[in-house]
Amino acid sequence: MIYSALLLAAAGTEEMEAIIAADVLVRAGFRVDIAGLESGIVKGSRGISFVIDHSLSEVKDAGHDVLVLPGGLGGVENLISLPGIDSLLEDFSSSKRLIAAICAAPLILHRRGYLNKLPEFTSHPSVRGQFGDISERWVDKRTVYKNGILTSQGPGTAFEFAFEIIRIICGDKKVSEINSGILARV
Amino acid sequence: MIYSALLLAAAGTEEMEAIIAADVLVRAGFRVDIAGLESGIVKGSRGISFVIDHSLSEVKDAGHDVLVLPGGLGGVENLISLPGIDSLLEDFSSSKRLIAAICAAPLILHRRGYLNKLPEFTSHPSVRGQFGDISERWVDKRTVYKNGILTSQGPGTAFEFAFEIIRIICGDKKVSEINSGILARV
Repeated sequence: MIYSALLLAAAGTEEMEAIIAADVLVRAGFRVDIAGLESGIVKGSRGISFVIDHSLSEVKDAGHDVLVLPGGLGGVENLISLPGIDSLLEDFSSSKRLIAAICAAPLILHRRGYLNKLPEFTSHPSVRGQFGDISERWVDKRTVYKNGILTSQGPGTAFEFAFEIIRIICGDKKVSEINSGILARV
Repeated sequence: MIYSALLLAAAGTEEMEAIIAADVLVRAGFRVDIAGLESGIVKGSRGISFVIDHSLSEVKDAGHDVLVLPGGLGGVENLISLPGIDSLLEDFSSSKRLIAAICAAPLILHRRGYLNKLPEFTSHPSVRGQFGDISERWVDKRTVYKNGILTSQGPGTAFEFAFEIIRIICGDKKVSEINSGILARV
């Protein structure tokens, strides 16, 4: 079985979070589509150029198993206003496919109310104050998986974030198999 | 003081190792030049496109404080045969500037004899057998810094690798300062 991931990116996306998630998922056998407003080179949150391979409209209906939302404050603001993001989130949510958001990206889900029913969630600690009424359910954990939504904290938790996506979709064995080459502390 | 890093990359470079090192160094205030045979988009070891900003000839004499060599077996083979790599290594070595190699990239240094005088070094465990006569000095540590050469093991040690570069050049305080945003386990 070949799984697939749709990773959204934009100018200002945190480069490490995007590339770690994409690379680790490829190592686990996923097809990874990096998509945004349009294909091309953009600069990430630290000014490092990276490549968006597809416009969202090209790949949005491909039935990916997971939607991956990387952080970077500027990138998250761009993804919040990305045309098509509302229907994309609704598609993943209604078909019970995994939505995974790291760093500031849980704010994308919060603005659409997708975190409202979760017993707990996390994000980068620096944006903890931006969750309004639900901020009391913010927890200081490196990854949190509840009700089909995975949240995580930052670049330094990106390996655990990617491993958790793989664990949820493929199981524990696949994680230990790929980490024998990656060598991340888990 | 603004420090600078020259990060070499090629088709087949391990994407995470390049981007983690570059991003973390930018967070520590470094100017980072990603250079290779020529500027442009290349595909990394897992097929993820990334961007080489400069040809090596454009930036080789800019007096960077550290030379960063990422892994990925195909990328390392390309860097071993990169025109100008011999004189570049000699420049960094003779002026006692830091050379930092991760994953399979210590093989680049080995082929030119730069590891011969080190009491110990490391690399990705999968290439441990490729160091010939000096393989008895290979050690299973996540980072090793000896005689101006830093070696490290793989994508999962890339944060520690980048932090060690910063520690050597800027000191411990800078590492803890930037890790408050990165959130890596150290």
